[in-house]
Amino acid sequence: MPKTAQTRLSKEGATHFLHIESPFHFATGGRLPRADIAFETWGELNHDHSNGVLIMTGLSPSAHAASSEDDPTGGWWEPMIGPGKPIDTDHNFVVCVNSLGSCKGSTGPASLNPETGEQYRLAFPDLSIQDIAAAGGRVLDALGIERLRVLIGASMGGMSALALMRQRPAIARHFLAISTAICAEPFAIGVRSLQREMIVRDPHWQDGAYTDENWPETGMRLARKLGMISYRSGDEWRSRFGRLRQDRFNERLFGMHFAIESYLENAARKFIRDFDPCSYLYLSQAMDMYDFTDGFEDLKSAFAALQLDSAKIIGVETDILWPPYQQREICKGLTANGVDCDPQTLPSVQGHDSFLVDYDRFCPSVAGYFRRVEKI
Amino acid sequence: MPKTAQTRLSKEGATHFLHIESPFHFATGGRLPRADIAFETWGELNHDHSNGVLIMTGLSPSAHAASSEDDPTGGWWEPMIGPGKPIDTDHNFVVCVNSLGSCKGSTGPASLNPETGEQYRLAFPDLSIQDIAAAGGRVLDALGIERLRVLIGASMGGMSALALMRQRPAIARHFLAISTAICAEPFAIGVRSLQREMIVRDPHWQDGAYTDENWPETGMRLARKLGMISYRSGDEWRSRFGRLRQDRFNERLFGMHFAIESYLENAARKFIRDFDPCSYLYLSQAMDMYDFTDGFEDLKSAFAALQLDSAKIIGVETDILWPPYQQREICKGLTANGVDCDPQTLPSVQGHDSFLVDYDRFCPSVAGYFRRVEKI
Repeated sequence: MPKTAQTRLSKEGATHFLHIESPFHFATGGRLPRADIAFETWGELNHDHSNGVLIMTGLSPSAHAASSEDDPTGGWWEPMIGPGKPIDTDHNFVVCVNSLGSCKGSTGPASLNPETGEQYRLAFPDLSIQDIAAAGGRVLDALGIERLRVLIGASMGGMSALALMRQRPAIARHFLAISTAICAEPFAIGVRSLQREMIVRDPHWQDGAYTDENWPETGMRLARKLGMISYRSGDEWRSRFGRLRQDRFNERLFGMHFAIESYLENAARKFIRDFDPCSYLYLSQAMDMYDFTDGFEDLKSAFAALQLDSAKIIGVETDILWPPYQQREICKGLTANGVDCDPQTLPSVQGHDSFLVDYDRFCPSVAGYFRRVEKI
Repeated sequence: MPKTAQTRLSKEGATHFLHIESPFHFATGGRLPRADIAFETWGELNHDHSNGVLIMTGLSPSAHAASSEDDPTGGWWEPMIGPGKPIDTDHNFVVCVNSLGSCKGSTGPASLNPETGEQYRLAFPDLSIQDIAAAGGRVLDALGIERLRVLIGASMGGMSALALMRQRPAIARHFLAISTAICAEPFAIGVRSLQREMIVRDPHWQDGAYTDENWPETGMRLARKLGMISYRSGDEWRSRFGRLRQDRFNERLFGMHFAIESYLENAARKFIRDFDPCSYLYLSQAMDMYDFTDGFEDLKSAFAALQLDSAKIIGVETDILWPPYQQREICKGLTANGVDCDPQTLPSVQGHDSFLVDYDRFCPSVAGYFRRVEKI
């Protein structure tokens, strides 16, 4: 039975689904009997399939990176993707994939296990970044893209992109890495480990057997607040909130008195029910465990197989979770192998999240790289 | 009845107690029917009482800053205090006070309320930094010290020291401020607010009615881990732990795989039962609410009354909780009033905790200041 016979495509609104109707094997040995991969696209694939752009996302975003006719609601990277925008859909066929293991359309721990009729929850196989990458690769197969014009990975998505290039060294001509790394640094591991502990120590966690009525709300609330603390920066909050008072959520002793506390509470409330706790744990853990240099002697040899024509590596000065030295490491690995690599450290004050909010700086940077690679 | 008749001193081991046998009134209106203030001393007060040094502490330390004949166990600032050490007890009479509201000897939420025979817990009055300062001032009264040679405040203790100088503008000739600020910045408020929430959302918190059997262990564990994450720095952990594996506490799925996780777990386990959750909440909240400039038009006028001969203000480059700009602010306020102020930003990698661990840098700095002020 040919490989393609085991997959089919469908579409609901703006969301495409790749249905993989045969076992999907995980890097660490587990398997799913079948899997769905959700993705969205913008623009048209050209005749020689040479204008493909793949975006691999951070932990929480869906495939809805930008609006389209089928879904006019704003996407998570709206100012970046569209006709005349930095990732110009008049010249590029842009694909954004929801990560395997997520809960935004792709198969994850909250999906039904066809073998039991129940949600996978902790029966979901041990997920690694390599599996997220492989799922993205299967979408490219289904779309007939053998070599991308640009592979884009931000945050966790940068690790997924690196893993995809490890699996398919010629998959991309150009690589745009944003606020990402070859592996998590100990500070980030410490933060994420604590976020996971917040969730699994919530009495409603119940070893993954939480219900809609008994949701690990406290764990998710605390984890999201710590997330926001690590994603942003003191510099931003100093100018944005200072010591402004806002007693909005001050319901009890040791309640909230400052605007910064309301801001964190609002961010948490939006997230608690919007993301599956199991998905969160699997993706968070996958990020900590990944190391692009595993199995290689040094940084140079880890990057040696990649058949890139160029790379642009953007980081942000105030990012405490994926700090600039980590982007310099990627550059070092690529440059050592003769890849034309353009590093840029932006002075954005919004920390790790800058690529999602500081469009004044990120749009020109991304637009410049696309103008360059479209000419190569 | 004279003021002194309402206080008495006692001693247990190395710990002195000032027993205040009359109501102690709090800045925001509450009162304690009576209060004990624990402190330790090293060296001898000279004939004109001019060699007094008062150390005001951060959130968690006891008064046991250094060993002595009465208590030979090492103190929390052992390399700093003693004969021939930077704070030389051959020339200085050194006093360290356990903060009011703490649980290390001074009256706090875990103390018995003489009016009820029960622990205060949430019946403890709303504590502010001003109350901690006032309690320290009462100890100086009992010791007969009207003007200190040096007032030292590190972290929260710096705020207490500033508040003491606001109450008694001539209390110190010299001021040594370490990794402190005139008020908490929003990043620090965000971190501490989340720590408090971790505790009060623990099911064992029970609105302060926790018991030894039902202790808010999870809340205290999470709060301490977040504390460690904010007290140290990514730089330190990068060189100290990197991605070293250590599956010591890996008891279950989403367990701990990395040395950094074991380190945080060990730090938390030491703390959980060693500090009273209520005390933690009261002190943490007091830090966020304090602002030395409250009631003043600007920074200059806030510092105008202080009768200091000199000040040394030390900060640390990698401190994300009390960042260097905050120490520069103190310097600015003092310098604007003509106080001879020596700022120093140390390149220590241990973040906010550097003054407790990077003695190679801190000892020469403190020793230098003491050599200087002993001559003035």
